[in-house]
Amino acid sequence: MDLTSFVTSLGTYFGIFMGLMIVYAFLSWRAGNNVVYYPNKILKGLEPLEGKNKSCNPFIWMKVALLPSGVDTAVYFVFLNTVLSILVLSAVILLPVLLPVAVTDERVVKESLTSHYNQTVVDELQKLTMGNITEKSNRLWAFFVCCYWFSLVALGLLWKACKHVSCLRAQALMDPNNVKPEQFAVVVRDIPAVPLGETTTEEYVHSYFKAIYPDTYYKCMIVTDNRKANRIWEELEGYKKQLARAETVFQMSKTNAKLEGTRPTIKTGLLGLCGSKVDSIEYYNDRINETVTKLEAEQKITQSKKQQNAALVFFTSRVVAASAAQSLHAQMVDTWSVSPAAEPRQLIWHNLTIKYFERELRKYLVHAIVALTIVFYMVPISFISAFTTLQNLVELAPFIEPVVRIKALRTVLEAYLPQLALIIFFYLLPKLLLYLSKLEGIPTQSQAVRAASGKYFYFPVVNVFLGVTLGGTLYRTFKLIEDNPKSLLSWLVMSLPDNATFFLTYLSLKFFVGYGLELSRLVPLILYHFKRKYICKTEAECKEAWAPGDLGYETRVSEDMLIVIIVFCYSVIAPLIIPFGVLYFGLGWLILRNQALNVYVPTFESNGRMWPHIHNRILASLILYQVTMLVYFGLQKFYYASLLIPLPILSFIYGFVCAKKFYPAFERPILEVAAYSMREAPDMELIFRSFIPPSLNSEKIDDENFEDSISKF
Amino acid sequence: MDLTSFVTSLGTYFGIFMGLMIVYAFLSWRAGNNVVYYPNKILKGLEPLEGKNKSCNPFIWMKVALLPSGVDTAVYFVFLNTVLSILVLSAVILLPVLLPVAVTDERVVKESLTSHYNQTVVDELQKLTMGNITEKSNRLWAFFVCCYWFSLVALGLLWKACKHVSCLRAQALMDPNNVKPEQFAVVVRDIPAVPLGETTTEEYVHSYFKAIYPDTYYKCMIVTDNRKANRIWEELEGYKKQLARAETVFQMSKTNAKLEGTRPTIKTGLLGLCGSKVDSIEYYNDRINETVTKLEAEQKITQSKKQQNAALVFFTSRVVAASAAQSLHAQMVDTWSVSPAAEPRQLIWHNLTIKYFERELRKYLVHAIVALTIVFYMVPISFISAFTTLQNLVELAPFIEPVVRIKALRTVLEAYLPQLALIIFFYLLPKLLLYLSKLEGIPTQSQAVRAASGKYFYFPVVNVFLGVTLGGTLYRTFKLIEDNPKSLLSWLVMSLPDNATFFLTYLSLKFFVGYGLELSRLVPLILYHFKRKYICKTEAECKEAWAPGDLGYETRVSEDMLIVIIVFCYSVIAPLIIPFGVLYFGLGWLILRNQALNVYVPTFESNGRMWPHIHNRILASLILYQVTMLVYFGLQKFYYASLLIPLPILSFIYGFVCAKKFYPAFERPILEVAAYSMREAPDMELIFRSFIPPSLNSEKIDDENFEDSISKF
Repeated sequence: MDLTSFVTSLGTYFGIFMGLMIVYAFLSWRAGNNVVYYPNKILKGLEPLEGKNKSCNPFIWMKVALLPSGVDTAVYFVFLNTVLSILVLSAVILLPVLLPVAVTDERVVKESLTSHYNQTVVDELQKLTMGNITEKSNRLWAFFVCCYWFSLVALGLLWKACKHVSCLRAQALMDPNNVKPEQFAVVVRDIPAVPLGETTTEEYVHSYFKAIYPDTYYKCMIVTDNRKANRIWEELEGYKKQLARAETVFQMSKTNAKLEGTRPTIKTGLLGLCGSKVDSIEYYNDRINETVTKLEAEQKITQSKKQQNAALVFFTSRVVAASAAQSLHAQMVDTWSVSPAAEPRQLIWHNLTIKYFERELRKYLVHAIVALTIVFYMVPISFISAFTTLQNLVELAPFIEPVVRIKALRTVLEAYLPQLALIIFFYLLPKLLLYLSKLEGIPTQSQAVRAASGKYFYFPVVNVFLGVTLGGTLYRTFKLIEDNPKSLLSWLVMSLPDNATFFLTYLSLKFFVGYGLELSRLVPLILYHFKRKYICKTEAECKEAWAPGDLGYETRVSEDMLIVIIVFCYSVIAPLIIPFGVLYFGLGWLILRNQALNVYVPTFESNGRMWPHIHNRILASLILYQVTMLVYFGLQKFYYASLLIPLPILSFIYGFVCAKKFYPAFERPILEVAAYSMREAPDMELIFRSFIPPSLNSEKIDDENFEDSISKF
Repeated sequence: MDLTSFVTSLGTYFGIFMGLMIVYAFLSWRAGNNVVYYPNKILKGLEPLEGKNKSCNPFIWMKVALLPSGVDTAVYFVFLNTVLSILVLSAVILLPVLLPVAVTDERVVKESLTSHYNQTVVDELQKLTMGNITEKSNRLWAFFVCCYWFSLVALGLLWKACKHVSCLRAQALMDPNNVKPEQFAVVVRDIPAVPLGETTTEEYVHSYFKAIYPDTYYKCMIVTDNRKANRIWEELEGYKKQLARAETVFQMSKTNAKLEGTRPTIKTGLLGLCGSKVDSIEYYNDRINETVTKLEAEQKITQSKKQQNAALVFFTSRVVAASAAQSLHAQMVDTWSVSPAAEPRQLIWHNLTIKYFERELRKYLVHAIVALTIVFYMVPISFISAFTTLQNLVELAPFIEPVVRIKALRTVLEAYLPQLALIIFFYLLPKLLLYLSKLEGIPTQSQAVRAASGKYFYFPVVNVFLGVTLGGTLYRTFKLIEDNPKSLLSWLVMSLPDNATFFLTYLSLKFFVGYGLELSRLVPLILYHFKRKYICKTEAECKEAWAPGDLGYETRVSEDMLIVIIVFCYSVIAPLIIPFGVLYFGLGWLILRNQALNVYVPTFESNGRMWPHIHNRILASLILYQVTMLVYFGLQKFYYASLLIPLPILSFIYGFVCAKKFYPAFERPILEVAAYSMREAPDMELIFRSFIPPSLNSEKIDDENFEDSISKF
């Protein structure tokens, strides 16, 4: 890629970005769109952006004070921040040193003169890379030193970040104003069959834990088979929604010509299409009363007869709960296995009852499936895209023939149809991986998201990084072997920096177009307005339509990590990539701060348990970078390349120390943290009841007081 | 090896065994030798073998009732018992089926007829092995089925043993009559530097644990730098012994001609060789008084000023101690690391103060050293034995020349001198490995012994098993390739069973001569009588001379394990080895029961923590056997050999399940066990003081009452 086309695409992306910014400034200014651009604030009961009207500056959101909302979000920003600092601090040395050193050498010019088969113009961008340095040149020492500088900066800042996040987590768990109910509970799985003498699982669990913790045991909650109760409860909620909708329709019809309005009607038969017509409001009221009775009966049966082999056990002391969660209770370790409890909203109840060795088996099976998918995912996609050529499609569905006849459309379709399968695959992939992770028997939502994120990580890496690097290099190499096998090594050296040029455009696409779309929220905006106009009637339905969801760690972290790998690996080879990395993480930091504050609402809070996951992957990128440099210096015939070997060893030792020193505190509750004094003695009954699933909650709906107290936690 | 020489050596070994048995019966009958043959009973205050005089039957000890003395000993017998049962149960099928099937085929006869280079006589023993089966013969199905039978029997019995040992351990730890002081304590290491505001480590530890366990924390004992106190204490003990010796000498001189006796004298100068002569008894009394004062002063300094970064923390509840021992206390996991306490007598105090990452570093270093030793230990030994030829020795030490001139002696020396280095190496090896294991920073004696045993395991395996099997096979193979490369495969098949014949003699040597020597205790007997005659004067010195030591798990288990590997691997190839294995483990069981009851005194009790170590190695032998069979069936061109692949997979799954289900209960204290009710509330002060090292114990020696109470635990 030559300089002109590079500048052109950069300009285009920047234009799109500016356009999206203006669209955002314009749209977010309109009060009707507040629910799309400030849902988080609205849900918290805050006024969306008070100073908004004073200025129409589209960059106003940059000034917003940055309050963290939860440790998970804070950890994500520590990640962005750390990578940004690594890049900025290394750029301070790398750019002023390496660019002049590279540009004043002239390997590229020489190669293009001596190369027999292709007298192309000199690639200006390549003159700024390590590929322009003559073999065995002393100039390589500059790159060598920078290699060390970059690694040491990265390790230093990662260490600082580890300490910071560890501190953040401890503080959040100690916070006397925000006592978490899950700190008083443990999850008990693999409860053995009830022995003779005890009547129910509940009694058995009670007597078992009462014997071990005579003073601090509070109560236990047995996990029950709620499938039927859940079905009835969902039915009830459905009727409630329908009732609200019917009432709204009735109200709306009143305001029109007829003063008394028309009462909406419904057909009672299949799908509301046949059967006798009845009054909707009366019909739904009847159904609700009926279902409530059914639900109450089912709740009783569930709690007494459908007890499963898992339970939540509550203690009156946080220290005891924390200590119990990491101790072995039974001599046979596959029974009475205890683990820390999680927030009620993120417990995956049906996974709690899976038995010990079944969980292990599922884990290995799922890992095997994912490993196979990573290696072979291109096979089914190629197969599908080969199958879905236009001709095949026309044969299968003759009615699309008229569309295909239009020439322009045909060209576009033929060009993009093979890509479509890949796009759909990458759209469905995170959902598939989350589903697979839940199949493993993971007990909490946050852990399932982490597991899914860990699996997703490999796909962009294989697809983009390895695809472009190996693909591009191998392609040029094969082409060369045919023509002139002598200069093979030299071409290997040249082609790696050439890939860097591709990644420069890829990065700018990501931060200009990607973040522009992220900020302007065009898709959710259109969806919301469409739904409001044609589907939603009641307020609850509207609220559902603009529900913002969470930051989406499972894909976001993996995609950022791809950028980390790219920028780290090319940082010394083609230092020009660093400013692009800085822009990516800088813009990302600013825009996602805005989104985290105004838009997204976390669906769970794991108090930063994501960090070891993120940290491990940054470290892996660093080691990949160090090994790449070792190989690349070798290709440049730099005889001191072996002096780089201490770097990956150092990184491994650093990783080992971190894994020992910091990680366990993310996995298991820490006693000195749990022992931190609380403002007031906790209300154990409230804590206990916050874990009751909604379908089993026998409280009447009007018990607002209680609901409020629960949401306090 | 042909049949005659095999029977000859078998007869010789049996003769030696019978001789040793008669010697034992004769010697153990004499009351003067009781301290050698019944030291355990004497130390326990029992009468050595009451029924002894009624019969002179040398097999009387077989009838002794078998009371277990400690879980560690019991676990060792479960090991012997399990292997014995596996062998007996598989022999029931293997011997009657495989021997007739093998002996009626005639491959060996054919091979010896067709083999061009060597018309040897037919090896009768080899006709009883799988090597006698013609290639691809259907008779191999019998061996195939036996392969499955042996594996299934082994896995079944191992599972039963695991359950049994797990139960034994739980029962011992729950025993209400035998409450162990270590169950109330935890070891705390890596205590951070004392912060401002606290004065001593003791106060710091106290306030830290008091905050976490306000109700159950009892006291803490800071590990101190005792080197100087220990030195003074040892000096004191030395003087006490000398005083006792001087008094005995004085008493003995009285009973002679002179009634008032001669008071012994001593020279006060260097090594008692020069200086002025003084009265011994007065001199030592003075020294003792002086040293006691010095010791008391040093004790005060040690306890106030030499506090280290480790401590023992005591709780009033076993459950809390058990739970604390496996919980993370500090957010930074490399500080305040807590682990279960061990018996006071087996704590390695100076290892407690080694820091977290230093321990890790030492562990890896030691493992690297041991790995290098295993791979290359033959190199220095060969070097030394090459260097220590007779000629070299004579040059170095001319005074031995007259000895060398004797021809018979010269022959013997020349034959055995190269072996001498190996023998000395194998004698010193366990001590070296125990030293290395302690260097790792392991906190308890029992764990160090296990670590040393794990390391020792590889040496007999490499030396004997791999040495003979590979060495023998390769030697024959190379010889063959020169002569007739065509029948190489066929010879590989023949040579493996041939090794079995060597192992038959090796086993019989082990059980006849080895166990005969073990039972007759000739070496300790001679040493004891020598010491009593020429060195020992006082009763305490005599007691030291016959101190029996413990069973010596670190080498014994590894050597038994070598036999397990040999017998397992050859069980189907040469079924004749099974009766020899039965004899080894059967005789071992009988003789060691006697030794455990009468002779050896355990130096520590780890409540069966040896079991996972033993079990893992039996399982590894089983997998090695299965893989060997897979390869051997392949060599026999048996096309269904791949049907054996499920066997190692099954063994791996079995091992995985065991490691998950049973092993953690051997590593960490179990809460349901710790919660088991005790007969009476424990005396915390006694428990606390049982951990005070003797050199720091400020109690006067005449506090007999207290000493007794401590020994209760």
